[in-house]
Order: sequence, then structure tokens, then C-alpha cells
Amino acid sequence: MGAAGTARQPRVGSRQQADLLALLRDEGATSRVALGERVGLPRAKLTAELGKLVDTGLVEVGGPAASRGGRRSNFVHLADDLRLLGVDVGATSITVAVTDGRCEVLAHLSEECAVREGPVAVLGRVTALAEQVLAQAPGRLIGAGIGLPGPVSFRDGMPVAPPIMPGWDRYPVRDELAGKWGCPVTVDNDVNVMALGERHAGVARSLDDLIFVKVGTGIGCGIVLGGRVYRGVAGTAGDIGHIRLDDFGPACVCGEVGCLEAYFGGAALAREGLTLARSGRSTLLAAVLEERGQLTAEDVGMAARSGDFAAASLVREGGRRLGHVVASLVSFLNPGMVVIGGGVSRLGHSLLAEVRGAVYRRSLPLATGNLPIVLSELGDLAGVTGAAWSATDRAFSTVT
Amino acid sequence: MGAAGTARQPRVGSRQQADLLALLRDEGATSRVALGERVGLPRAKLTAELGKLVDTGLVEVGGPAASRGGRRSNFVHLADDLRLLGVDVGATSITVAVTDGRCEVLAHLSEECAVREGPVAVLGRVTALAEQVLAQAPGRLIGAGIGLPGPVSFRDGMPVAPPIMPGWDRYPVRDELAGKWGCPVTVDNDVNVMALGERHAGVARSLDDLIFVKVGTGIGCGIVLGGRVYRGVAGTAGDIGHIRLDDFGPACVCGEVGCLEAYFGGAALAREGLTLARSGRSTLLAAVLEERGQLTAEDVGMAARSGDFAAASLVREGGRRLGHVVASLVSFLNPGMVVIGGGVSRLGHSLLAEVRGAVYRRSLPLATGNLPIVLSELGDLAGVTGAAWSATDRAFSTVT
Repeated sequence: MGAAGTARQPRVGSRQQADLLALLRDEGATSRVALGERVGLPRAKLTAELGKLVDTGLVEVGGPAASRGGRRSNFVHLADDLRLLGVDVGATSITVAVTDGRCEVLAHLSEECAVREGPVAVLGRVTALAEQVLAQAPGRLIGAGIGLPGPVSFRDGMPVAPPIMPGWDRYPVRDELAGKWGCPVTVDNDVNVMALGERHAGVARSLDDLIFVKVGTGIGCGIVLGGRVYRGVAGTAGDIGHIRLDDFGPACVCGEVGCLEAYFGGAALAREGLTLARSGRSTLLAAVLEERGQLTAEDVGMAARSGDFAAASLVREGGRRLGHVVASLVSFLNPGMVVIGGGVSRLGHSLLAEVRGAVYRRSLPLATGNLPIVLSELGDLAGVTGAAWSATDRAFSTVT
Repeated sequence: MGAAGTARQPRVGSRQQADLLALLRDEGATSRVALGERVGLPRAKLTAELGKLVDTGLVEVGGPAASRGGRRSNFVHLADDLRLLGVDVGATSITVAVTDGRCEVLAHLSEECAVREGPVAVLGRVTALAEQVLAQAPGRLIGAGIGLPGPVSFRDGMPVAPPIMPGWDRYPVRDELAGKWGCPVTVDNDVNVMALGERHAGVARSLDDLIFVKVGTGIGCGIVLGGRVYRGVAGTAGDIGHIRLDDFGPACVCGEVGCLEAYFGGAALAREGLTLARSGRSTLLAAVLEERGQLTAEDVGMAARSGDFAAASLVREGGRRLGHVVASLVSFLNPGMVVIGGGVSRLGHSLLAEVRGAVYRRSLPLATGNLPIVLSELGDLAGVTGAAWSATDRAFSTVT
């Protein structure tokens, strides 16, 4: 770490080298023969390109297992000391992880931190946590990725007009962190990196077309098509939280009314739970409120699981509304999988059951025939894993 | 024409040749210098690749304008005698067009023909019409494309379980027509080819991300992302007609209830118009029914334009429901344009106004900020133009 600039970063000299690196990241140690077949390179050319990658220190031949016998010395793998930082900034918390070259999390730390405190405070916390995790798993930092809870210009590496992030609009997140860490940095929307995380290492592994629906404080959706994040013309693709369900619905944080997010999501659940507690319709939530003076979405979920009728109805109703929106998306896009993640996804089966019911009832049979609707597998680490993956996508490319 | 097989078809020998052909199709006659710059070829290589294309007869150098002066002899263009067939099979009509290599329609014919008569009858009419249009604009047939009103396996070149096309399920449309015409044939969904038509030659020219919403007898949607049709995992992407709006809504032709198509689209408008006429709520429609014994969606549109309150309400209400669905798609996908086409789009401004109102009110400002919502420019020729374009995409590729 330090302000070393990006000049010392290893350079990827050709398309073939980039393909080899991506393959070694996605598949792990691979024999030379299999590598040549997979990237379609004749032997001499493969040897030359691998040689250049070994020179940069990105790739090693043989490795720990080689000494045990002649056979494994033909294996090629990413260098063991490669490190990537994956950062997931949520509305109210930060998670920072350090991974190896294959985006496997080696160490991670989380802390409460409100994104509304602004970029200076939040990025200060991010860099402090990054130093701590890198100390736990030291190595050669070759890239970092960060997900932010709002619209992001991926090209410019900064948030653009994010509704819940005062002070962040067009703040040069990428350039500031790249200067601090001396490596290339990618900045993306939090839901996009979660989708990438599940696709690289989670439940959607190897699927090319999927949607990842995050139900946290707010609601958003990451779209992966042909294995890449689809961002839309203005970078707002997947912003389903503010699809208006009713012109006369409840007020939303965005200033409009009747948004999906105003009906469901962490903030709405907490607010509705408060109403249930105060009106006495849920004695369980009333007791929690009495004891703690406030209610969270987790409390509502706990009450629902404990059999509280009013709380369970709230979850069912919200899941049904979310399901109606997801059903439209499924008919429209015919994805290969729907993954549900984010804090509220801890509601687990009861939420999934409502979403599945709505989708299977409302979408085309052809589109739902082979459509798994599943919970995020990586949970709290989906974002940091995807952010690290996004960083390798940059670090293992010929772009400099 | 005739069963000559595809062996005599010109062969595209390299990726560079394919790029040159696509450029000449999309941009027309181009100088050698500009061609070399656009496809990134050094002069000697360009000369060699162009030479091979001239040998196949696909490309000509100079052309009619050359004799007028030395200057234009440096221009390269697609051979004048190239011909493509574009076929648009709708629920109740067929249009067949012959185009030049740039997919400009040279001649076209339409006739009433119900797709439910089955593939033998319908494809018989298609080949008869094709002979007629080819006779009007003779040349060298190098490819054909056909759009069908139902789900299609693009890879297999056949419809798959199409709801309104009895007898067509897995009928080998591509192979049968390729055998008859002796050229490569592509088979796609009708809405996909309409979207391609508008993107190649119509209102969406040069836009990479757009959705084309067809409101005809039924309702469907073609999705173009990154300049290519997005088909989804099972080929059903864009099937928005059967998104369920209400679990207790009207019955739909698909056997379900409450589908968008059961509320709006040609069939629903005609049915609702009949109710208005019989109940006496529309004296205008009652008069038309009295005179002709039946009512069509066009009659309802005409009544609405003439100021009939009940008919105008019907169009407004339908447009509003369509608009709600489109608003969700816009929030979700953040496209660069929404194009509305199909027969019912003849309702024109009043329909557009309702759809726009719903989208601008319900979608994210960032997603609608630069979002044109417009009528199809090519109208009845969108499908045949896109089908011809799809055929060039195949004929100008290195695939054989």
C-alpha cells in the first residue's frame, strides 16, 4: 500500500494473456495441455505467452504440489501472493475483504457506517479497514473494486446523483482510491457487484443470464447478461425499487409515491412494524418496542418467524408485491436464474415462497420452466467477492 | 430460385470480409480510404480482402458514377444485383419483400392469411408471393429471413410451442425454405425482426439498446441490447403480452386470466368495442356494427379519433395499462429508446400520450431523461426489413 501510483502494476501484454489469466482465475490450477486447448493456442505460442505472464509475476508454474512428484509440475496457477480488495459500502455498513487472485476471501472486516456521512468520512473508514485486512493476509495488491449504494458511472468511476448519499455526487472515488492504493480501482453499483459475486463464486456460478434482487434498506436489481453486467444507457438499469406500483401509494424516500421500495424493503418493514406495535395488532412487536424504544426490519422478520400473525402478514404482503415485479422481469428477460439477497433476504423461506408463488403464477410457463428462484449463497460476502472479481476483470485486461 | 441448394452461395472467407460487408450494408458506398480506416486494415490487406469479395461477386468497385469522373472510381459498394427476401408472417396476414444488399425494400406484397391454417398452407402462400416479388426485382438471392408470430428457436430455425399457431410446433421452417430457395434462411420471432428493422433503417437507427413494443392482435416486445437481439435463456424474452396484471382479470387466449393482452391489443379492443356497441354506450360503434355485422380494433380507433367518448376511454385505459408495463421495463433495463409498432399503433398520438404519461410518471427520472418513446417509422415494413437484415447478418458471416 501507499501512494506508489499504478506504474509498478504488472502489465498484461496481449488478449491471449488476458484470456489465460481469466481462465486461471475461474478454474484454478490448470495443466498446460488443458490451458492450450481452452484458449486455442498452439504449444509454442502458449509457452511464449505463459513465459511473459511468469515474468510479470502474475502466474506461477508448478507450485507447492510440484515437489511431491513430477506430474503436477505441469500445472499453472495464479501467483499465490496476488491480492485484491473488495469493498461493499451499504446504506448503513461497510465490509472490506482481501482476496487472492481467484477472488476467494482470505480476510474480511465489517463495521457500522452511514453512507450519508459523506465520502471523506466513509472512504477514510474504508482505507483504515483495508489496511487492517491487508495486514492479516499480506501480498501484492493488484486491484480493488468497490460497490456503492446508488447510481454509478462505471466509466468515470464515481457516483452520479445518488439519492441517499449526500456529498457523493460525482466524487472521484476511483481516482482517490487508486492514488491511495497504487492499483487500478473499479467503482460500481452495490447490486451489480453482488450479482457478479454470485455469478463468479456463488449460487449462479457459470450462468450467463441472471438477475440478482437485493432487498436491503432499499430494493435494487443487478442484471447479468452474457456473463457481463448490463448497465443500461444511463447506468440505471436494475433500479426496480422505484417502479411505481400505485399512483396513490405511500410516500417513498425518493420523493415520489407508491414505489416498490415504499411498500417493501428494510425501511418500509421497520415503519410498518412500528405501526403494528403501536396499534397493538402485534403484541410481540409492541413488547420489543417497549424494551428497546425502536424496531428494525429484523425484528419484524423475527416476529414473523415466531408466528406473529400481523408480522407474518406484512412479510407475505411485501413478498407478494416484490413477486409481482419480479414476475414481469422474468417474462420480459427470460433469465436463467433469480437470486434474492440483501439483509431482508434473511426472512428466508417465507419471502422466497411468496416471490416464487407470484412468479410461477404470473410469468410464462416457458420462462419459468427451468427457472430457479433462490437465496444468495454468499450472503454478506456477495458484494466484496463481486467487487474483487470486477477488480480482476480490470487488472487482468490489456487496458492500462 | 429453385432447389439449387446452398452450394452456389458466395462464401465469406474471413472475419475482415464479414466486417467489410456489414459496413457496406450499413453505410452504403464507401471510399477505399474510409473503409480501411473503419475496419482497421492496412492498405495491402484491404486490397487483398476486397479482391476476394469482388471475386465472389458480393462487392463492386467503382459503379455507375465512375464514368462521370475519376474521383468516384475509388468507391466500393455491395453488388447491385444482390437480393434478400424478408418475410413477415402475422396472425392474420403475410408480407413478403425483396430487398437489395442494403436491406432497402425494392418490392413487396401483402395478403390476408391466417397463421392458424398451418405451415403447409402458409409457407405455400409465402413462396408464391416470393416468386412474384422476385420477378418484380430480379437478381441474385443470397439470403432470406422470416418472422413468425410466436416463440421461435432461432438456433433450430423453427417455432416452439407457439400458442396461436396450431400445426407449427417444431415445423422445420428454415430447412424447408432454404431447400426451396437455395440460400441460407433465418427464422425469428416477428417482434424481434421488427426491432431489428427499426434499428437498421428506421427510427432507432444506430441505437444499441432499445425495446420495440408491438401492439397488434397480441402484444409482444423485441429487445435489442448492444446491437443484437436479446432472446433469453429459453428464447421467450420480450413476451410481455402475458404478464399478469390482475389475478381476477379477463380471460386471455393463452388460457390464463388477467394478462396484459387480455386488456389491450387488437383482439381485446375489438371485444370491448362490441360491448360498447351492444350496450349503447357508443352510438358510433353501434352504427358500424349495425352496418357491417362485426367490429375491429381499427373501428374502435376510428371512433376514438372521431371523438366518441366511450371508445376514447377504452384506448386511454388500454394505453395506461400498457404504459405501466413499459414503465417497469424502462426502470429495469434503462434502454435508449422505446418504439411502439404493430397495427394498434395506428391509434397514434392518443396511444403514445398515454404510454408516455405512464412511463414519465412512473419510471426513474435518470432513466427517462433522454428516453424517446416513439412510433415505428417503418410501419408495415419494419418486419420485412428486419427479416432481410437478419438474413444479411447470416449471409455476410463466415459461417457456412
